Amino acid sequence: MTLEAIRYRSGSLQILNQLLLPHQTVYEDVRSVQDAYEAIKSMKVRGAPAIAIVGCLSLAVELRAGAGGDDPVTFIRESLCHLTSARPTAVNMGRAARELMEFAENESMEKNSEQLRESVISWIEDMLERDVNDNRKIGNYGAQHILSGVPRDSVTILTHCNTGSLATAGYGTALGVVRSLHALGRLKRVYCTETRPYNQGSRLTAYEAVAEGIPATLITDSMAALTMREMDITAVVVGADRVVANGDTANKVGTYQLAIAAKHHGIPFYVAAPSTSCDLSLESGRDIIIEVRPPEELTSINGVPIAAPGIEVWNPAFDVTPHQLITGGIITELGVFLPSELQAALTGRLTAL
Amino acid sequence: MTLEAIRYRSGSLQILNQLLLPHQTVYEDVRSVQDAYEAIKSMKVRGAPAIAIVGCLSLAVELRAGAGGDDPVTFIRESLCHLTSARPTAVNMGRAARELMEFAENESMEKNSEQLRESVISWIEDMLERDVNDNRKIGNYGAQHILSGVPRDSVTILTHCNTGSLATAGYGTALGVVRSLHALGRLKRVYCTETRPYNQGSRLTAYEAVAEGIPATLITDSMAALTMREMDITAVVVGADRVVANGDTANKVGTYQLAIAAKHHGIPFYVAAPSTSCDLSLESGRDIIIEVRPPEELTSINGVPIAAPGIEVWNPAFDVTPHQLITGGIITELGVFLPSELQAALTGRLTAL
Repeated sequence: MTLEAIRYRSGSLQILNQLLLPHQTVYEDVRSVQDAYEAIKSMKVRGAPAIAIVGCLSLAVELRAGAGGDDPVTFIRESLCHLTSARPTAVNMGRAARELMEFAENESMEKNSEQLRESVISWIEDMLERDVNDNRKIGNYGAQHILSGVPRDSVTILTHCNTGSLATAGYGTALGVVRSLHALGRLKRVYCTETRPYNQGSRLTAYEAVAEGIPATLITDSMAALTMREMDITAVVVGADRVVANGDTANKVGTYQLAIAAKHHGIPFYVAAPSTSCDLSLESGRDIIIEVRPPEELTSINGVPIAAPGIEVWNPAFDVTPHQLITGGIITELGVFLPSELQAALTGRLTAL
Repeated sequence: MTLEAIRYRSGSLQILNQLLLPHQTVYEDVRSVQDAYEAIKSMKVRGAPAIAIVGCLSLAVELRAGAGGDDPVTFIRESLCHLTSARPTAVNMGRAARELMEFAENESMEKNSEQLRESVISWIEDMLERDVNDNRKIGNYGAQHILSGVPRDSVTILTHCNTGSLATAGYGTALGVVRSLHALGRLKRVYCTETRPYNQGSRLTAYEAVAEGIPATLITDSMAALTMREMDITAVVVGADRVVANGDTANKVGTYQLAIAAKHHGIPFYVAAPSTSCDLSLESGRDIIIEVRPPEELTSINGVPIAAPGIEVWNPAFDVTPHQLITGGIITELGVFLPSELQAALTGRLTAL
């Protein structure tokens, strides 16, 4: 059984409240754009792809009920504007809003209100389906690539942060590769790092693994190198916040350290990301600004202080892994590419592997 | 001001209750061997050197009050036996007990009960003084060695776990090196890792730094490599649970990963440890068994669950750093040695640097 973080049927939407995970599994109705706005803002749903999907689906739910009346375009525009403002740094919502608005405006030239609503709903439902399908392709390409390099019956993967159903429209990117290996009966075990300071590994990835019966072991971030040495790790697979033109990859802090340790042990290091996460407008990782988050993420947990009062804190949210350390490849829905091949592959000058 | 974890004056002993740190600073009287046994067992005091010192000092307190009457040797033997059983894996208490018992038995041949009590008390007080002095020597040798390699006015250190006043008789080993650099006015800043899962860095090292006004910044274990790249780290300095003949070093889990990252960035990696932590009876780190601790250390904090229920956990307490990665050297009270020089240095065949 695949964990469903987003439950959508025409006219109805439910999301798994991630604020209550891993201790309670509660689905909540999202009946309106305003419901979705609040769910995104309060982080009941998180992960850039998931935010965009939930936002757009909430619009589809309202349109199905006839929202916008005689002027659906205005309603769509205002709704998308509101949704984008919930977490302005989540780029996927902004991108989806621009594309959907352009589509709606074109459609409105030749369709009446009812027809326009129908075609926008279809566009959104296609987006959901496309996102899950792309993730499945990433999972399959990644699994095949990893398996092609090993003579063994089964493989052991190490991953970081949460890149599964809970962060995407479903299935996941790096965790999608793990899911595919498991579905093929070729996954011996996945080691997931706790992922301090926000604990996406111990809270979310562990939750997904337990929910689906994927053999998984939780370790602290500090145990990764020892795990590589002792546990016969076949490959390290992580997700990406952004992959730039030369293959340098921004991802959850700790990724860079994992890549160094993987290199030291001769273990292939993979980045799994849809092509929509690749940003060819930036030349190299030096152009990416490191977001620094509040100290409280380190000094307290669930509001309870855990560090010495008065200590200074540095809390960068992500780091940049140079392309030289991405030795396995970049796994996209188009295939698996070396960092040096990425640009050509995404601009159609290279065929998938 | 140096943080005092152990307050001893002839006939009286107080310890800082580490279970209440970092939120409360409470000193508690240790009036008897039984008090010390309970403090050690409940982990009010921790760190192998500190355990041995507190145990022996509690014996000195009782002897000062005349304990043992006409047969102090029997009292001493029974007390040491009891103290050693509080945490049998802490080797320093066992070693101190053997040495002290041998001393007491020799003394008893030519001294009366009162004289014997006095000489045993002196032996214990010497032990306290020697331990602090050895740590100060480690601090000074380490600081000079690090400074000799850099043209800069001030240096930035990265350290792991807690190796300060709270883990030793006072001053500390790796954190002693940091203290010495600070005392010389040459420390720009120390970065201390949180040190999951037991958080010795955020709770104890951060506490010591704040208490003494040492400029310090807390990071998660996953941020160490990024810190090395971004923060101009001069050297990484860690402590040791055990250094074996070829220089391979067992220390708190995460040390191995730091050493790999330091090597990748060309940053010298130092181990600071008294010669009593060196075990020449073992040839290499392969002979060291990795202690695996309970899963609860990862899945809960202060008794509150923080991970997905049902997830499997691997929780090795330490790891072994191969001597090839100890590029700066091993800092002892006898001087700083390359791993390849250690055996000769400790057996008197090599003079201190």
